[in-house]
Amino acid sequence: MRIALDVMGGDDAPSQNIAGLRLALADFADVERFLLVGDETRIVADLGDLAHDPRIEIVHASQVVLMDEPSSTAVRKKRDSSIAVCSRLIKEDRADAIVSAGHTGAAVASTVITNRMLPGIDRPGIASVFPSPNGFFVLLDIGANVDCKPRNLAHYAILGEAYSRLVLGVEEPRVGMLSIGGEDGKGNELTRNSSKLLNRMPVNFIGNVEGRDLFDGSVDVVVCDGFVGNVVLKCCEGMAKAISGMLKENLRKTPIR
Amino acid sequence: MRIALDVMGGDDAPSQNIAGLRLALADFADVERFLLVGDETRIVADLGDLAHDPRIEIVHASQVVLMDEPSSTAVRKKRDSSIAVCSRLIKEDRADAIVSAGHTGAAVASTVITNRMLPGIDRPGIASVFPSPNGFFVLLDIGANVDCKPRNLAHYAILGEAYSRLVLGVEEPRVGMLSIGGEDGKGNELTRNSSKLLNRMPVNFIGNVEGRDLFDGSVDVVVCDGFVGNVVLKCCEGMAKAISGMLKENLRKTPIR
Repeated sequence: MRIALDVMGGDDAPSQNIAGLRLALADFADVERFLLVGDETRIVADLGDLAHDPRIEIVHASQVVLMDEPSSTAVRKKRDSSIAVCSRLIKEDRADAIVSAGHTGAAVASTVITNRMLPGIDRPGIASVFPSPNGFFVLLDIGANVDCKPRNLAHYAILGEAYSRLVLGVEEPRVGMLSIGGEDGKGNELTRNSSKLLNRMPVNFIGNVEGRDLFDGSVDVVVCDGFVGNVVLKCCEGMAKAISGMLKENLRKTPIR
Repeated sequence: MRIALDVMGGDDAPSQNIAGLRLALADFADVERFLLVGDETRIVADLGDLAHDPRIEIVHASQVVLMDEPSSTAVRKKRDSSIAVCSRLIKEDRADAIVSAGHTGAAVASTVITNRMLPGIDRPGIASVFPSPNGFFVLLDIGANVDCKPRNLAHYAILGEAYSRLVLGVEEPRVGMLSIGGEDGKGNELTRNSSKLLNRMPVNFIGNVEGRDLFDGSVDVVVCDGFVGNVVLKCCEGMAKAISGMLKENLRKTPIR
C-alpha cells in the first residue's frame, strides 16, 4: 500500500506528522511507500536521519489550507495545497490512501472534486472511531452530509461496514441505525423511512440502536445523518472533557493518604 | 402551590414516591397541598405517620399506565389511570403542577389532551436538566416532537427560558440553539431556517452552540428538535455509565496502598 501523508495538516506541522511517520515506518511493514506532501525544505529539515529511507518520497506542495478557511474557497483557490496534491496522487494512481490531520472539510471537498465518488455512492461520509468496552465502533456520517436521504444512510452502512471489517478487523460487523427507540416505527422522518432500505443492504443490519447502546459494545457500525453524528461526536468530547476536569479537580482536593 | 403527585409512576411505586413526598414536605414549605393520586389502599398503607398531615390529600385512581404500553393506547383506554386523574386535577383547578416518575409519553399525551397547550404554543416539549460546571442547563425538546419546524424551536426557547429563570433561578438565562458550527449559516435545514426567528424571540438568544459547549457552563437553555435531544440525552447517559464502569473496574484492580 502507498500512503500520501499531508505533512502540513494539524497542529505543530510538519514535525508532529514526521513524528507519526516514524512510528508508522516501524509499525506498518506492509506500507511500501510514504509520499510526504508539503513544503519540501521544511520536510527535509524535519526528516533528519529518515531522509534516506527508501520507503519515503517527498512530493512538494507550495500551499497550505488554513484551519479557518472555508472549504470551498480553499479548494478553488489553493490548487497547490498539500491536500490538493494528495488528492491528485490518488487520481494519478501514485497513492492508495491519504492521511491528513488538517482541515476536514477541505480534505473531503478536495478528494471528492478530484476523484469523484465510488460507483453507486452519492455523497461522501466522514467516519469517526470511538472507544467501546471491547474495542471500537465506527460512527458515520459526522458532518459531511447534514441533510440525508435514506439512500445516503444505506450507503454509509456499506462504507462503515467495510471500514470496520477491513481496517478494524471486525469479522462480521453489526451495523445499527442511530434512532430514539428500538422499534422500526420509532424515530424521525429520516430513520422511519430508512429501516426498510437498510434491511435490504448486504450487511449485518441489527436495526435501530439508541445513544445508550453506543458505549456498551453491542454495535460495531452506527449510521446517522451528519448533523446528528456531529452533535454526538462533540457532546461526547465535551462530556469527556468535563468529567476528566471534575476528576482532576477532585484529585487535587483529596489529601494524600 | 398545589402539586398533584402520580404516586403510581416509576420503579418501586408507590413507596419511592411516598419517600420523596416525605423529603418534599420538609423542603418545600411553600407547597400548600400535595394531592397523592393512585390506589388509595396502597397509599394509605405506605403513608404511615404521614396519613394525618394536613397538607396531604389522597385522590383515588383505579388504573396505572405500564411502562411498556404505547402512549396512545394508554391515554385512550385507561381513563382512570393515575396520570389521567392528575391531568384532570389541573383542568379542574385543584392542582397547579404534576410530578410523575412514570411513563413520559403517556404523561405528555394525557396532559396535552386534557389541558391543551398554552396560548400560542403549537407542540409540547420535554425538557431535561443536565449538570454543568457551575449549575445546570436545560435541554429541550428531548423527544416529544421529533420532526420540528422553526416555530417549535422558537417556542422551546421561550418555555426553556421560563423554566431556567423560574425553576432553576437563573437571572438572565443564555439561550442557545444546538447546531454543528458557531455561525448562523452552519447546521442542517432546520437550524439554518431557525436562527432568524430565534433572534426575534424575547429571550437572551446567544446563537448556535455546539455539543462541546454544553458541559462548559456557557449556556443555560439549549433548544433542538426532539430526535437530536433524545439522542444527546441517551448518549450522555450511555457514556456516563461506561466511564463510571471503567473507573470502578480500575479501582477494583488497584491494590490497596
